[in-house]
Amino acid sequence: MNGLPSVERAIAIFSRFPGIGKKSAGRMIYHLLRYGERDIEQLLQALQNLRDRVKTCRICHNLAEGDICWVCNDKKRDRSLLCVLEEPSDLMAFEKAGFFKGTYHVLGGRLNPLDDVGPEQLNMSSLEKRLLSGEIKELVIATNPTVEGEATAHFVAQLANSSGSKVTRLAYGLPMGGELEYLDESTLYQALTGRREF
Amino acid sequence: MNGLPSVERAIAIFSRFPGIGKKSAGRMIYHLLRYGERDIEQLLQALQNLRDRVKTCRICHNLAEGDICWVCNDKKRDRSLLCVLEEPSDLMAFEKAGFFKGTYHVLGGRLNPLDDVGPEQLNMSSLEKRLLSGEIKELVIATNPTVEGEATAHFVAQLANSSGSKVTRLAYGLPMGGELEYLDESTLYQALTGRREF
Repeated sequence: MNGLPSVERAIAIFSRFPGIGKKSAGRMIYHLLRYGERDIEQLLQALQNLRDRVKTCRICHNLAEGDICWVCNDKKRDRSLLCVLEEPSDLMAFEKAGFFKGTYHVLGGRLNPLDDVGPEQLNMSSLEKRLLSGEIKELVIATNPTVEGEATAHFVAQLANSSGSKVTRLAYGLPMGGELEYLDESTLYQALTGRREF
Repeated sequence: MNGLPSVERAIAIFSRFPGIGKKSAGRMIYHLLRYGERDIEQLLQALQNLRDRVKTCRICHNLAEGDICWVCNDKKRDRSLLCVLEEPSDLMAFEKAGFFKGTYHVLGGRLNPLDDVGPEQLNMSSLEKRLLSGEIKELVIATNPTVEGEATAHFVAQLANSSGSKVTRLAYGLPMGGELEYLDESTLYQALTGRREF
């Protein structure tokens, strides 16, 4: 379209981010070009640091700057309570909320046969090892409430059954602040069947 | 909050983009980290190219990869018709639409005394030189329809008055596809006072 291949290419690459279309990507690139080299330098530096410093925790597969992540390094966390999650971003949601005092295991995705993601593609064998160590008293399954997340939850539950750990799953029900009127049927069904004494 | 300063820093830097909050920035960074090094490499390469290759056109101050931009380089463009714009992104909007066959002059912003942007901070002296060359028959002012854009338009019009060029301004009125019901008063006023014979 125009004589700026570098701009076109940058827009194409920024459009790959989730939730960023060609229009937003263009706005981002023009913003960068308008505010000049200092901004581009800072962005380059930040991305190089991401590439060079951010690794995966040897124990739980969380993101880590170093060999072991800040959760696994924290002596105050309860090592008998283990929460299984799909992605580091799910772990961040828990850590932001701040009430969970156990440790984590990040699977690195969810079972999805259509995309050729089986148990071997996820961090299942290291989970099995942790379960067999006998240290885990309760395993909280916190995969997403989607079809693939549920399938993954079932697989993890089976894995844990032989270990003697108690296995729990996050509760389903009404999201706080939501309105019944706008809730989908299956959430409403889960909220009703999972009702508790008041 | 967590033990990932590089991630925090990258999120902070991505949050500076227009329309990108901390949440979207986080999603972008986790996306990058999930899809691994190849994506980060491509992003780094694209940003380095932006920094190293994209310059400003010596004639019209449009973005250019080289000394002169693709519009000024195009022999088929009408050099007697000059369109004055605030930013290269405004020029892109015209080029995308594709109907304008003249050339451009990018001011690099708008007059804004509160932000200390006066005529000296904009590409006004090069505009004056182009006007004095006698080549320009019509100057189309296409600054934004905002308070600062209007002030800039008035300044440019005064600059052009002594040159003998005809000076025009983009029309104000109803945006195509919009609905009267949702239009602001001043646009409606402009549409009414600027009405034309049917």
